[in-house]
Amino acid sequence: MIPLRKADELDDWTLRSFGHRFATPALCHAALTHRSAGAAHNERLEFLGDAVLNCSVARLLFDAHPHADEGALSRLRATMVSGATLAEISAELGVGEHLRLGAGELKTGGFRRASTLADALEALLGAIYLDSGFDAAMAAVVHIMGRRITALPAADTLKDPKTRLQEKLQARGLALPTYTLTAVSGDAHAQVFAVSCEVLPFALSTVGEAGSRRRAEQLAAAKLLELLPPEMRESP
Amino acid sequence: MIPLRKADELDDWTLRSFGHRFATPALCHAALTHRSAGAAHNERLEFLGDAVLNCSVARLLFDAHPHADEGALSRLRATMVSGATLAEISAELGVGEHLRLGAGELKTGGFRRASTLADALEALLGAIYLDSGFDAAMAAVVHIMGRRITALPAADTLKDPKTRLQEKLQARGLALPTYTLTAVSGDAHAQVFAVSCEVLPFALSTVGEAGSRRRAEQLAAAKLLELLPPEMRESP
Repeated sequence: MIPLRKADELDDWTLRSFGHRFATPALCHAALTHRSAGAAHNERLEFLGDAVLNCSVARLLFDAHPHADEGALSRLRATMVSGATLAEISAELGVGEHLRLGAGELKTGGFRRASTLADALEALLGAIYLDSGFDAAMAAVVHIMGRRITALPAADTLKDPKTRLQEKLQARGLALPTYTLTAVSGDAHAQVFAVSCEVLPFALSTVGEAGSRRRAEQLAAAKLLELLPPEMRESP
Repeated sequence: MIPLRKADELDDWTLRSFGHRFATPALCHAALTHRSAGAAHNERLEFLGDAVLNCSVARLLFDAHPHADEGALSRLRATMVSGATLAEISAELGVGEHLRLGAGELKTGGFRRASTLADALEALLGAIYLDSGFDAAMAAVVHIMGRRITALPAADTLKDPKTRLQEKLQARGLALPTYTLTAVSGDAHAQVFAVSCEVLPFALSTVGEAGSRRRAEQLAAAKLLELLPPEMRESP
């Protein structure tokens, strides 16, 4: 088991990485203790941190995207709090270097495991919430992912191509696109579906090919979006 | 569309029901406006309120069940924030009487629809969060469901019977139960499985019968839990 870093070193690290100085350092130690290292491990804090993170990100997105509907907000949040995103942030902050792991986990490289890193990041946010309240935890969320949240695309672009195409046409009172299955090829276990997408008002037509009809429709719609007049491509 | 109640009436109601007086009453109006009534409806607030509710309940359970692991905390939370629970609380508070619905929803009894009531309750919590911050929203959660949270069973009882039986025996260093399929009867489309559960250290045995083997095992374990010595039934 890796011994704890010296107290002042850990204090510097949390201040630099999360903008937070723990009033109760024991909470920080618990958040950095993997289940494999025994006793006071971080799984309950992870439960709390997951909730704090979801709520903070919900609020930040709510404010940053005043015109996004709840579906778009949910999709934006899902990208921000995914295990992959959290593991990446956790690695950037060097959480792995401060983790306490049991011998077995240590040997198998547990301090680099994505899920372990993501869980510890959530646990640290839970610990900050317990330490200093919700606003402090939300400030830490801004500290560690504020720039990623600002860099998110407009909520609209996260909709799937078929939905986007339909909404663009509807907004202008135009007829909706027609999707037609034009061919199915390949063996039974590896069929390829070809679907055409037609937008009559613009006399446009594209074809998408994929292993499922649904996916082929989405591809055809994506291609068609690219062919729309520039002013329609850019506006919602 | 139902007209808004008089401002002071609404003010009294939110204070009585949520322990909150809105600094910005427009937020309360938006939270009570169903999508069918147009314009500034409550779906974005519902997104935010759902997050606030989850985080508040997570914290309340974290504090109330210091020995529950994260799995038990998740299960307890799921029962508290289920659509059914929220709709029930919403109905008790009379949220339906303050809802603004479109004519169509009104005619089909939308103000009694469980999902509409649950959504509006979440939206009101989101509105309180925006109005006065997280701690005010969490105080409202305590106001509307504090007693239900206190009345929750010990985290342990939410585990399934097989898990509970196994943990009780393990905690005392006793041999684990044995499950044996003793009979399968009935036609192919409606089979009945009989499974016995044996706990050798107590010379106890029970049989569960159900439409699946898994379910029969759980029933047998549930029966066996009832036969354990009283001191084992009560403690974790």
